[in-house]
Amino acid sequence: MKAVGLVVEYNPFHNGHLYHLEASKTASGADAVIAVMSGNFLQRGEPALVSKWARTKMALKQGADLVIELPYAYATQKAETFADGAISILEALGCSSVCFGSENGEISPFLETAELLNSHHAEYQQLVKQFMKEGMSYPSAQTSAFLSLETDSRPLDLSLPNNILGFQYVRAIQKQKASMRPLTIKRTAAGYHDEDFNSSPIASATSIRKALFSDEQKDISPFVPSSTNELLREYESEHGVLHHWENYFNLLKYTVCTMSMEEMRQIYEVEEGLENRVKSVIMHAESFKEFMEQLKTKRYTWTRLQRMCLHLLTRTTKDQMQQAGGRAPYLRLLGMSDAGRSYLNSVKKNLETPLVSVLSSFSHPLLDLDIKASAVHAMILPEPLRSHCIKREYSTRPFQYDREKGCFL
Amino acid sequence: MKAVGLVVEYNPFHNGHLYHLEASKTASGADAVIAVMSGNFLQRGEPALVSKWARTKMALKQGADLVIELPYAYATQKAETFADGAISILEALGCSSVCFGSENGEISPFLETAELLNSHHAEYQQLVKQFMKEGMSYPSAQTSAFLSLETDSRPLDLSLPNNILGFQYVRAIQKQKASMRPLTIKRTAAGYHDEDFNSSPIASATSIRKALFSDEQKDISPFVPSSTNELLREYESEHGVLHHWENYFNLLKYTVCTMSMEEMRQIYEVEEGLENRVKSVIMHAESFKEFMEQLKTKRYTWTRLQRMCLHLLTRTTKDQMQQAGGRAPYLRLLGMSDAGRSYLNSVKKNLETPLVSVLSSFSHPLLDLDIKASAVHAMILPEPLRSHCIKREYSTRPFQYDREKGCFL
Repeated sequence: MKAVGLVVEYNPFHNGHLYHLEASKTASGADAVIAVMSGNFLQRGEPALVSKWARTKMALKQGADLVIELPYAYATQKAETFADGAISILEALGCSSVCFGSENGEISPFLETAELLNSHHAEYQQLVKQFMKEGMSYPSAQTSAFLSLETDSRPLDLSLPNNILGFQYVRAIQKQKASMRPLTIKRTAAGYHDEDFNSSPIASATSIRKALFSDEQKDISPFVPSSTNELLREYESEHGVLHHWENYFNLLKYTVCTMSMEEMRQIYEVEEGLENRVKSVIMHAESFKEFMEQLKTKRYTWTRLQRMCLHLLTRTTKDQMQQAGGRAPYLRLLGMSDAGRSYLNSVKKNLETPLVSVLSSFSHPLLDLDIKASAVHAMILPEPLRSHCIKREYSTRPFQYDREKGCFL
Repeated sequence: MKAVGLVVEYNPFHNGHLYHLEASKTASGADAVIAVMSGNFLQRGEPALVSKWARTKMALKQGADLVIELPYAYATQKAETFADGAISILEALGCSSVCFGSENGEISPFLETAELLNSHHAEYQQLVKQFMKEGMSYPSAQTSAFLSLETDSRPLDLSLPNNILGFQYVRAIQKQKASMRPLTIKRTAAGYHDEDFNSSPIASATSIRKALFSDEQKDISPFVPSSTNELLREYESEHGVLHHWENYFNLLKYTVCTMSMEEMRQIYEVEEGLENRVKSVIMHAESFKEFMEQLKTKRYTWTRLQRMCLHLLTRTTKDQMQQAGGRAPYLRLLGMSDAGRSYLNSVKKNLETPLVSVLSSFSHPLLDLDIKASAVHAMILPEPLRSHCIKREYSTRPFQYDREKGCFL
């Protein structure tokens, strides 16, 4: 059997994701689709709208055959580390290709860019440092460094978020000497960060989330599969909430208030005196938005600061995160279809990375971070739901989806 | 001028407190009453019903002339440390006497007991250790040790909570070589822990709190001065809550969930592997009461465990608390009457301990704990009230009460 890997967040699963999933299967000629998915917190340092379990269901129903959790220590990081973790998981599972969306749908510019940066490695690193010294954020410094390289052609626009991620996948494949082939699908319609709907049935996840939280109760059904819509509504009615940073502001304020400066400095991404700024700003801020707007400076992107806040919220330390970076140390299975189970059986004996179906069977410091993150994600729920969700992390077995019957076993 | 000192919590101020205040003034012949009062968290490891500011108003309206905050590091401790802090503050302010309630209203049994324990010091300590080894809680071991001393007479029943506190005041006076005279007033009617009302106009604070939180909306007005009742109602309508441990359970669960075992062990009162018990029990507990009932063992009193929970909630470490024990390092003034101001003026030039009226004028690690405790106490309030209460800790000047006009200036 042959599998294609996708790196996803599905927050929530929408028509663009469906298009990407189906086109990836066609382009790769794969029998199974493996989705490596962020858990309850996402790359932008945000809580997922709904738990990873609900998002796993969305993915399985729409065509994913295996859903594997990207550990917190990779999922909540800058593109480079995020890609390292995701690619290592797909490679460990023997994917013959990984397929990502890009602006123009051609893979050669990604390969050429990787080549270009390899051959200008020292110059590029030097330039990034220099631009950061001048006060740029890390992503801006990267873009500027790339644009300043002494070269005749720049095959890729690295200021576009999707191109950055795609490029990092290609770079990770090369770095890890992975055998999988990178493929890319041309994105349709919506830009990554588009905030508003247009006439296309494809809208960005950002615009869909915005609609979900708007007071106007905008209808998202034109933009998501009906199963996504149902699962979102079901989650909201059972849990009383779609998760949003504002729900956690109370806990963030509390935890910052009780932490000493020394403790704050130990938290991942708290650098260069940010602890003083966070502490003084948060005490008088009345909402997460107000807090972030007051915290924001030119030096740091919103995303970077939001990730720092997330690590404060989960009290994730530099020591704990130091263990992430190279290959992910386990494969946490969240769900599978029949095809996914067949695929797993076909590769099982060659797996070198432990496959984790139930938590009691395995332990690892990075898995402890995933467990803690799930508990924190559930912390805003009312009892007894909260206790139930915390317990569920240990007791839930991976979902099994019967695609023919269209139901879970 | 002559001042009598009272050690109080006023949670809330009730008719028994009024009786004690007036009788103390009479018995001591003092011109001014100085109340050293626990801040936002109390000796039993509980949040105060209403803030220290509201309780300061209650005290001033009913006859206190100076209200001084007993720092968190003394207020949330076993009787011995609690008494050390309170007595040192009253002594620093030049009180000529301290007056406490007791079961039979005679001071000699307290003095004789202190004498007895002084002369049997080694034997007593040895017995306490032995009983604790046998699995007794610290207070039970103390009582048993006292009852096991080889002596003909035991002048005091040290199993009664009020007698324990009174005895500790006397012991602290001796230890600190304080010049103030201990006085005692016979308590009327209600026992310290009585949970129910009877026909007397005096009811225990425990029973009053119970009534305030009961579903039946029991009327507490027969048992408290009308100003207390008004201030409680005013606080509740402004803040939407009377503070109770259950309100904080969410935060406690969250903080325990994000702490490592190593971090938990650094918290004050987390001893002998309690961190493991707390962590495993809290994850599945749906309320503070359920949590405490599951946590409770013969070895620890409810109060001892509740204090540990409080230190977890405020993340107060062993290192931080190590600085408490001897004399309180500052006198935080919360409010005063005209007589209080006159008294302060009369002793001001002889004060050896800094008097703190506004926070910006002084800094001390123990004062930081008070500030943090106030912020945590306010953490359950909705915004913008929460931010307001946190700011207020810095901006509020001590209340000034004009007793003749019956109003605050």
